[in-house]
Amino acid sequence: MANLREVAAKAGVSVRTVSNVVSGAGPVAPATRARVQQVLDEVGYRPNLAARHLRGGRTGVVGLVVPELTSAYFAELAGLVVASAGERSWTVVVNESGGTVEGERRLLDDVGGRMLDGLVVSPWALPPEELTAQAGELPLVVLGERDPAGVADHVTVDNVAAAHAVTTHLIGLGRRRIAAVGLQPHLANGTAAQRLLGYRQALTDAGLPPEEALEVPVATLHRAEGARAAQALLDAPHAPDAVFCFSDGLALGALRVLLRSGRRVPEDVALAGFDDIEDGRYATPSLTTVSPDKRQIADRALQCLADRIGRRGPATAQRIVVPHRLLVRESTAGDLTA
Amino acid sequence: MANLREVAAKAGVSVRTVSNVVSGAGPVAPATRARVQQVLDEVGYRPNLAARHLRGGRTGVVGLVVPELTSAYFAELAGLVVASAGERSWTVVVNESGGTVEGERRLLDDVGGRMLDGLVVSPWALPPEELTAQAGELPLVVLGERDPAGVADHVTVDNVAAAHAVTTHLIGLGRRRIAAVGLQPHLANGTAAQRLLGYRQALTDAGLPPEEALEVPVATLHRAEGARAAQALLDAPHAPDAVFCFSDGLALGALRVLLRSGRRVPEDVALAGFDDIEDGRYATPSLTTVSPDKRQIADRALQCLADRIGRRGPATAQRIVVPHRLLVRESTAGDLTA
Repeated sequence: MANLREVAAKAGVSVRTVSNVVSGAGPVAPATRARVQQVLDEVGYRPNLAARHLRGGRTGVVGLVVPELTSAYFAELAGLVVASAGERSWTVVVNESGGTVEGERRLLDDVGGRMLDGLVVSPWALPPEELTAQAGELPLVVLGERDPAGVADHVTVDNVAAAHAVTTHLIGLGRRRIAAVGLQPHLANGTAAQRLLGYRQALTDAGLPPEEALEVPVATLHRAEGARAAQALLDAPHAPDAVFCFSDGLALGALRVLLRSGRRVPEDVALAGFDDIEDGRYATPSLTTVSPDKRQIADRALQCLADRIGRRGPATAQRIVVPHRLLVRESTAGDLTA
Repeated sequence: MANLREVAAKAGVSVRTVSNVVSGAGPVAPATRARVQQVLDEVGYRPNLAARHLRGGRTGVVGLVVPELTSAYFAELAGLVVASAGERSWTVVVNESGGTVEGERRLLDDVGGRMLDGLVVSPWALPPEELTAQAGELPLVVLGERDPAGVADHVTVDNVAAAHAVTTHLIGLGRRRIAAVGLQPHLANGTAAQRLLGYRQALTDAGLPPEEALEVPVATLHRAEGARAAQALLDAPHAPDAVFCFSDGLALGALRVLLRSGRRVPEDVALAGFDDIEDGRYATPSLTTVSPDKRQIADRALQCLADRIGRRGPATAQRIVVPHRLLVRESTAGDLTA
């Protein structure tokens, strides 16, 4: 790897000028800056991160903390954050917290010692106040619902409206016993609570009273929990004629139990999920779902972070709501090609 | 956050002793080390990474480069590497290369400037010689097939034996026109080539001549490519009675096309994958697959890396083969509960 002296010789400028271009610290004429940058690119010069950090510069490294990479939703989101960060020449450190209070505390506690310019966190367990307290001076953006205290920038979809739309779609198909699978009263992040709110609201709007027996809590958003919930619903006295799962993973677990029990989907039981992961598109029947605009979530989160790092953001915490779409597929609408 | 002086006062030792414990550089009696470590843990002391790195110490950060996080196999593997690293108090920087020559070069080129103790890479495009050349002095472990040059530690499954076992299983079910989906002649990593070898060998062993028309190349390992390949096989003059896909993602894409075309799986077409991702367990029919021992892949790779970092490894590159299992499920064996 070339050093600054070699770059200076190649570009025909002083070492100080090269140093100013690399650090962004001193004045350099635009044409000179371009010439130096071209040589830096040619020789593949990489600034020494440690040295930059110690003199108070930026590292170009941002952190992303997700509950789990084995959830297809978070894996897809992580991929989009990495891609979007690449366009800003940022490197992303991806870490998974396990979604527990301890795991999220540990990762946030660690970042103080790490060389990060900023952090994007999708928290499950820690309340926003603790997140921001732990992050300290580090620029922070939070993904997902929701921050009643308004202490950190948030990027989310409108979970109430999305759940309302799914439930109204199922009601429009003539379904009356619509189960909701995915309550997570043990988590602080509020996403499931918001979806439950939208589901209940849609039932009430249609004159259908919400029934506690049709609202099923889960420990995780994995297929195994969806399978368990579907089995419990089938074993209960009055089986549902539709199931709205709060994630596609839950829905795909439920789908297998429904099909294996001899139910036709959607004829006997209509089924909808949330997240629009690839698995749902290729399931048979394909899965009706809510598609959050994941690319926008990634882009807007990094834009927020860039603003905070550059001290350009508004003084108060922002709440950014990205669009979502209801994707009607075979698991509620039947064979669309027939 | 406490500094070394406070820790020394609390533990009743000198600052130099605390420094020796933190850096691992100097001699400290075991009982003293334990007492100092306890105080360090109590006060939540985090070493300053930048300072440690500059004085030649270790950062406790290792890198993991995978082709893509949206592949369930790599997402699961990344999760296991993060978990296994946690047991060593290492933090993992996860990065995705896109599986291209440019992407892999860029990430390896970057690591020189990053603060990593070592790197685990699952390469698709770069040949091993270039990998090790790019990594330079950085301890490196390569996942997957295969390193004919023996220049870096490799952790892999026996892809030839695994593919042979799947194909032999299909032959044992009476299938004679067994397609192989997943050839990737454009990639340098050799995994698909090894699986093709095992498939052809099993056919030959059973007196069945391999047919070029039944060997289908793919651009990626995603569902869309599996769907495309299955459609091409169905459109050809002589449709197969079994399909062995080189990944579960490909198999799940093929499954949808087979079912939507009216084929019964496995009665008309038996189907098998490779990887044992969660999606395959919950598909209907559930997917027969090869299950590499992913936990062992993660553990052994990190053990190799620890050996290299500590300069304890053998002088020559190691090839570590972890076990795999053939999981027979409904997509080849039919309804196992009936």
